[in-house]
Amino acid sequence: MILAANANAQGSHVGEWRHPTAWDKPASNLENAIRLARIAEAGRFDLLFLADGNGVRNLDKPDLFAATSPSDRPGVFEPVTLLSALAMVTEHVGLVATTTTTYDEPFSVARRFASLDHISKGRAGWNLVTTSNPGDALNFSHEEHVPRDDRYERAGEFAQIVKGLWDSWADDAFPQDKASGRFLDPSKVHALNFRGKHFQVAGPLNAPRPPQGHPVIFSAGQSETGKELSAATADCVFAIEGTIERAQTLYADLKGRLPKYGRSADSLKILSGVTIIAAETEEEAEQLARELDDLVPPAVGLDYLSKMVGVKMSAYPLDGPFPALDFEHVGPTGIGKAIVAKALEQKLTVRETYRAILPQMAGNFFKGSAAQVADLMERWFLEKACDGFMIAAPVVPTGLERFIKLVVPELQRRGLFRTEYSGRTLRDNLGLARPENRFFAQAGRAAE
Amino acid sequence: MILAANANAQGSHVGEWRHPTAWDKPASNLENAIRLARIAEAGRFDLLFLADGNGVRNLDKPDLFAATSPSDRPGVFEPVTLLSALAMVTEHVGLVATTTTTYDEPFSVARRFASLDHISKGRAGWNLVTTSNPGDALNFSHEEHVPRDDRYERAGEFAQIVKGLWDSWADDAFPQDKASGRFLDPSKVHALNFRGKHFQVAGPLNAPRPPQGHPVIFSAGQSETGKELSAATADCVFAIEGTIERAQTLYADLKGRLPKYGRSADSLKILSGVTIIAAETEEEAEQLARELDDLVPPAVGLDYLSKMVGVKMSAYPLDGPFPALDFEHVGPTGIGKAIVAKALEQKLTVRETYRAILPQMAGNFFKGSAAQVADLMERWFLEKACDGFMIAAPVVPTGLERFIKLVVPELQRRGLFRTEYSGRTLRDNLGLARPENRFFAQAGRAAE
Repeated sequence: MILAANANAQGSHVGEWRHPTAWDKPASNLENAIRLARIAEAGRFDLLFLADGNGVRNLDKPDLFAATSPSDRPGVFEPVTLLSALAMVTEHVGLVATTTTTYDEPFSVARRFASLDHISKGRAGWNLVTTSNPGDALNFSHEEHVPRDDRYERAGEFAQIVKGLWDSWADDAFPQDKASGRFLDPSKVHALNFRGKHFQVAGPLNAPRPPQGHPVIFSAGQSETGKELSAATADCVFAIEGTIERAQTLYADLKGRLPKYGRSADSLKILSGVTIIAAETEEEAEQLARELDDLVPPAVGLDYLSKMVGVKMSAYPLDGPFPALDFEHVGPTGIGKAIVAKALEQKLTVRETYRAILPQMAGNFFKGSAAQVADLMERWFLEKACDGFMIAAPVVPTGLERFIKLVVPELQRRGLFRTEYSGRTLRDNLGLARPENRFFAQAGRAAE
Repeated sequence: MILAANANAQGSHVGEWRHPTAWDKPASNLENAIRLARIAEAGRFDLLFLADGNGVRNLDKPDLFAATSPSDRPGVFEPVTLLSALAMVTEHVGLVATTTTTYDEPFSVARRFASLDHISKGRAGWNLVTTSNPGDALNFSHEEHVPRDDRYERAGEFAQIVKGLWDSWADDAFPQDKASGRFLDPSKVHALNFRGKHFQVAGPLNAPRPPQGHPVIFSAGQSETGKELSAATADCVFAIEGTIERAQTLYADLKGRLPKYGRSADSLKILSGVTIIAAETEEEAEQLARELDDLVPPAVGLDYLSKMVGVKMSAYPLDGPFPALDFEHVGPTGIGKAIVAKALEQKLTVRETYRAILPQMAGNFFKGSAAQVADLMERWFLEKACDGFMIAAPVVPTGLERFIKLVVPELQRRGLFRTEYSGRTLRDNLGLARPENRFFAQAGRAAE
């Protein structure tokens, strides 16, 4: 089982930064990031994962600044620079950063992740995303956001180029022989000369091949184009589903797309996003969950709910029944429809509805004693809903510490999770092969 | 006197990587970079400086791969990721990385350097350059390189935006008060809404104001537009002149441009690029210089000379007199003309000419005993040729170690250089004020 930690030191639950056990002053706090990385490594986690965005969203709703998802926040580190620093204070844990393909250049992204992979000695990962937020476009000289199809087409070319640039040099291209003066072997370099619709990139990259061959590529899209891009390109998928049945369907769907790209089912790992509140007892976990929800003022809860269903919820009485919204026009995504359906089915009030969605960010939510949480994780894993989990554990850092103290030993006892790191690189730990160089056989000889 | 160390662990002299005392395997070698940073910090240097380029140049001349300038090289780290890692193993030394304005986005650059400044607790610097190399253009979907005037106009807007984004938030914009739930103060954010010819950037930046207010900005251009951009924008200039007279002229020229931007002469520091070979005795220094030149095969020396003067020098006898080239058409820059003039004046052979330019990369070159080198440095400093030096000291690391062991104490005895770090940030150490926020008075109140 793969375990990944959401490494945002501000947490993921809307109200958790206010909890008494949460770290003080979480905005751009390096010491917190270092401590969190060390906690995750002590827990034998596979990797730290940093979400990202390129704009301060909700600028009109200051109460939401500390809320919603980490990528919307105003006081964050640029992920690759942060992970490069964290590489120096950790030894084993993988370091995965989100970087958009919509407003960056493939040569630059290939360079930064190659550099991070060299610095971390093979622990780098790139979460490949496209940026849909219209506000971010305004920070990159675009009048409006790039249309979806363009973004995905661009992302596909982008990934091809980045991988091609990582293969610029054979692994043994740099003999650096003082005696002969032979610094590099000119037969072991390949210029890419990529010419596509969106990009033309000559290459080669000005960095030796990364220790992992290619840093591990993550993707997250669950649309049809997103799933196809993942099957063609990704090593890991970060999936968000609220029920095991839907997660199983997505799992089978994604794995089923691999053969046409000549890939085995094992070559793509699917991590399910989950918020976990684990405690000594079920009651304690429930108590913590209530404390967290109480830290969210109704105005923030309503704003958050409004954003999720795409309807201004402050127009309805807080403690009145959830309104029968026009179902067809609800929500920017399927998440909104799911929330409305649940609220109507369970006859929730507006307040009860926002409290119901706060902890899990509309995703999966495991709460309870160590055994209860381990049971759920084991079931999802064994019943092919996922290959592992991307864990948000409010409150930072106590939630993750408690998970590691209580649940990790339980998973280890059941033989589901490592007791020591065995691999040298992130790929090793994830059970992913080091990619062959597409231009050179492993010995360094040109393949074409 | 300001001292900056060229932090490229491969050195700067064409042949130095082959020297017996040079580090083995210098390409993308993290351990070397860490050791070099610690050496510079032990020597109380103000800062480490990383040159950069975005392409492997001289792909047709493999012998030159380890030669010429660090920005041409194939096996290098991306500078910001490297410095972020080095921030974790140093405490005082400044960390200055080159990033081009030609093929990057101001929002992204503002973010990365803000992040590096937070990670290093106020030790970040950005060397703002434009990219003239046509080969780099081919890595960024450009058919040909961006014309010079466009590049500088773009760089000017770029710098304005980056500084504006660094001022997005008042220094006290994030109270992060758990009790009240007030994460940030919405009156202390300013959206830039920059609309220029090359860029439209809304802002605000998604990072708190950097510890230094603005990371220190370096620039290097010595053309008319380059000098004007430095006077308008830079905190430090990296200047390359071969004689004290020319350096004095440039120094007076640059400082003289400051008043019209409302700046004092002290607010721009000029660092002269210099290659230093210091030894116990003059003879030892001469001997080391000869050893280094002997490590450069004639083919490499000829290639290098050909590049500098823009003429294929292998067409002339190696030990024959330097040819009387058509002076008007020599060299891509003024450097070529200076080399030809010197060779003809001193009646050098072709071999003698390339050996004469190898160590100093056509710039300033100090060689000799500790007292001799300190004398030269003192004279340049006191006679207003510079405010300090950007030092390349072959061989890496022994050249820098010898400089610190021999020359630094001599400079300290003369009262020219610090014996301990006194400042908390790079700006403090350089004697540069922390910039006011253009949108907020220091107390955090909106200034307009």
